[in-house]
Amino acid sequence: MSGYANRMASASKQASKRLLTASGEAKARWLALVATALREQTETLLSANQLDLANAADHGLSEAMADRLTLTDDRLEGIATAVDEIAALPNPVGEIIDGSVRPNGMQVTRVRVPLGVVFFIYESRPNVTVDAAALCVKSGNAVILRGGKEAVHTNVAFHSLLVSALETAGLPAEAVQLVDNPDRSLVGDFLALGDLIDVAIPRGGRSLIERVSDESRMPVIRHFDGICHVYVDQFADLNRVVPIILNAKCQRPGVCNAAESLLIHSEVAEVMLPAIATELLKQGVELRGCERCCQIVPEFKPATEQDYATEYLSLVLSVRIVDSLQHAIQHIDQYGSGHTEAILTGDLASAQEFTTCVDASAVIVNASTRFNDGGELGLGAEIGISTDKFHARGPCGLRELTSYKYIVTGPSAPDWTGVR
Amino acid sequence: MSGYANRMASASKQASKRLLTASGEAKARWLALVATALREQTETLLSANQLDLANAADHGLSEAMADRLTLTDDRLEGIATAVDEIAALPNPVGEIIDGSVRPNGMQVTRVRVPLGVVFFIYESRPNVTVDAAALCVKSGNAVILRGGKEAVHTNVAFHSLLVSALETAGLPAEAVQLVDNPDRSLVGDFLALGDLIDVAIPRGGRSLIERVSDESRMPVIRHFDGICHVYVDQFADLNRVVPIILNAKCQRPGVCNAAESLLIHSEVAEVMLPAIATELLKQGVELRGCERCCQIVPEFKPATEQDYATEYLSLVLSVRIVDSLQHAIQHIDQYGSGHTEAILTGDLASAQEFTTCVDASAVIVNASTRFNDGGELGLGAEIGISTDKFHARGPCGLRELTSYKYIVTGPSAPDWTGVR
Repeated sequence: MSGYANRMASASKQASKRLLTASGEAKARWLALVATALREQTETLLSANQLDLANAADHGLSEAMADRLTLTDDRLEGIATAVDEIAALPNPVGEIIDGSVRPNGMQVTRVRVPLGVVFFIYESRPNVTVDAAALCVKSGNAVILRGGKEAVHTNVAFHSLLVSALETAGLPAEAVQLVDNPDRSLVGDFLALGDLIDVAIPRGGRSLIERVSDESRMPVIRHFDGICHVYVDQFADLNRVVPIILNAKCQRPGVCNAAESLLIHSEVAEVMLPAIATELLKQGVELRGCERCCQIVPEFKPATEQDYATEYLSLVLSVRIVDSLQHAIQHIDQYGSGHTEAILTGDLASAQEFTTCVDASAVIVNASTRFNDGGELGLGAEIGISTDKFHARGPCGLRELTSYKYIVTGPSAPDWTGVR
Repeated sequence: MSGYANRMASASKQASKRLLTASGEAKARWLALVATALREQTETLLSANQLDLANAADHGLSEAMADRLTLTDDRLEGIATAVDEIAALPNPVGEIIDGSVRPNGMQVTRVRVPLGVVFFIYESRPNVTVDAAALCVKSGNAVILRGGKEAVHTNVAFHSLLVSALETAGLPAEAVQLVDNPDRSLVGDFLALGDLIDVAIPRGGRSLIERVSDESRMPVIRHFDGICHVYVDQFADLNRVVPIILNAKCQRPGVCNAAESLLIHSEVAEVMLPAIATELLKQGVELRGCERCCQIVPEFKPATEQDYATEYLSLVLSVRIVDSLQHAIQHIDQYGSGHTEAILTGDLASAQEFTTCVDASAVIVNASTRFNDGGELGLGAEIGISTDKFHARGPCGLRELTSYKYIVTGPSAPDWTGVR
């Protein structure tokens, strides 16, 4: 079977070379064609989606998973709008990041270039197929998409639309390829092709990400757990604390940047914790706390060590009273996942110490953890949120799908020589 | 033995956390102390180095390798000067890379932060010990140094000096640790500690780099071969071509950015190749060329396929006549190592096509490949030259030893809420 992966990856590599000379205009034309087709071909797309939904039970999908798989007219419009938004972002390729003229007259520029070939492995949600293709091609990369078998008909329909638009726009058809063979061992074949594929991006459950990290012969942009904390400092203002905690925990509890753990300074716990708990309980949040929490608010269940290490992704919150900012930072060091950490405080020194010492992709002062998102931070659409520190950290948009190269030009003086 | 690696890496992680709050001033004080000690403790350092040199034959070092291991007063002064130069570079930590105020009033900044803990594995040259420590600590990282056993006495002496200076400067002593145990299996123990070590940087032969890439559970900054080409375009000027080729090939043939292969357009080969060959032969360069080369210049030996894939690191040059710029780019795609590629031309379109389509860390127009160097490009000292496209590409200086995080601050309006 490895011939299959090799042929596809070689075709991607060739396409990525042709994309090096693709103009921003051609890519914009492609995105406009894609958005139009998404709006015009709703019937084709919805009936392909129906085939997948008919098999949902056979694939053992839960109701929530089947819902995520379902396309509607509204959801297709949402996907088309996302493509419009990506089209509106500046073309990252060719951006001059920095540059200088050296004392010897040589001009040095550092120029943004595509990574090359992206292998993108993801589960369920079919909008990701279009999003990922749009982000990869706009950033000059060829992409190999490997969606879940439960969405194969939908993905084939999207892929066919994306490829027609590539051909009409004069871009290489192999810039977007879809692995429509459900054989899981194929993923391993692709991950072995470190010479042809420049980066692997898994998006899905922990076991998928671990498998890709283990087997991959190319770099990986990973998104592990989001065990995000909100720390209520002793200098916090109760009126500001409550709405931020509610937003962080309840606005969309199933996502990675939702808060999973609340830390609160012991000096303010007796005053603030009852008020915070009342509001959270009204929203149906289950509270699990340390011994002191349980003493202050009887509705608390006792938290175990495991609770502090858990990404609930649901309306459960672990809570701990800490005796200092340093204690809060230590707790986050131990249990946090490097995703998003927030401090609520009116004190500048507390904010400075927290933002300096907490090691996470986003460190937030007086705002909800939910703001760690490509759109909210101003990057536009994202292909994932990296919890690693290497290459890309936090939301990964167009810029994070690029590398750079140095372009060096000697001066025109004919007697100019080389390194001494 | 893995307890040894684990203890050292844990101490490094702790030190890296303390370095998060180290001021640029404290780091500058440390570098000044190191430079002074290098100038004052020459006797201690030279006698430690003598112990290593006495064992050089036992370690099977060639004369060239023993020479690279040798310290002299001049070389120590060179090492101290390099530390002065690193001290003069701006402190990268805390740099605000970019930022904005979002429409909702939230302030977003992207701030440069250290990677954390660097595991640096290198061979022979003892100046690398000081260079690497200086670059890592200046960029806020703790470093675990693992030099070659042939340099252990020299490295221990350098390490002791570096640590004394850390203590005097008020920085954590464990910010620079040295693996003085020569057991090779220890390297594997360190490479398994993906939770404690943030990046591994091997610097040495291909087998070392391959081993580190295979075993490492953390990201790797790698520097593979430098198979660098100079392409003489049909629009090149002979007067400019000769000195650049001589510099690229002969100025220091044993380094990675020296040229290994010359491509020349068929339209100018008959006129230029004899003149170029004459000058190269004068410098003692052995020329291996394609059939057409051999017909034009009788001193050529025939080149094999293998010649085009070889990094000679010596006064040998492979040469090939190509019929077009596209042919040159294809040859570089096939045989190049993504390190440094140069075009010599007076034609702007040729220069544009070459710089756009050639995929290498540095693409050079009308200058020597030797310029792909941190100092020459204006980065200051470098810890290596990355031939990867992920995270860092080309010379890796202070900036390439950092990551970033988003710092997000909500506005002070008390009614400000979260993500809708």
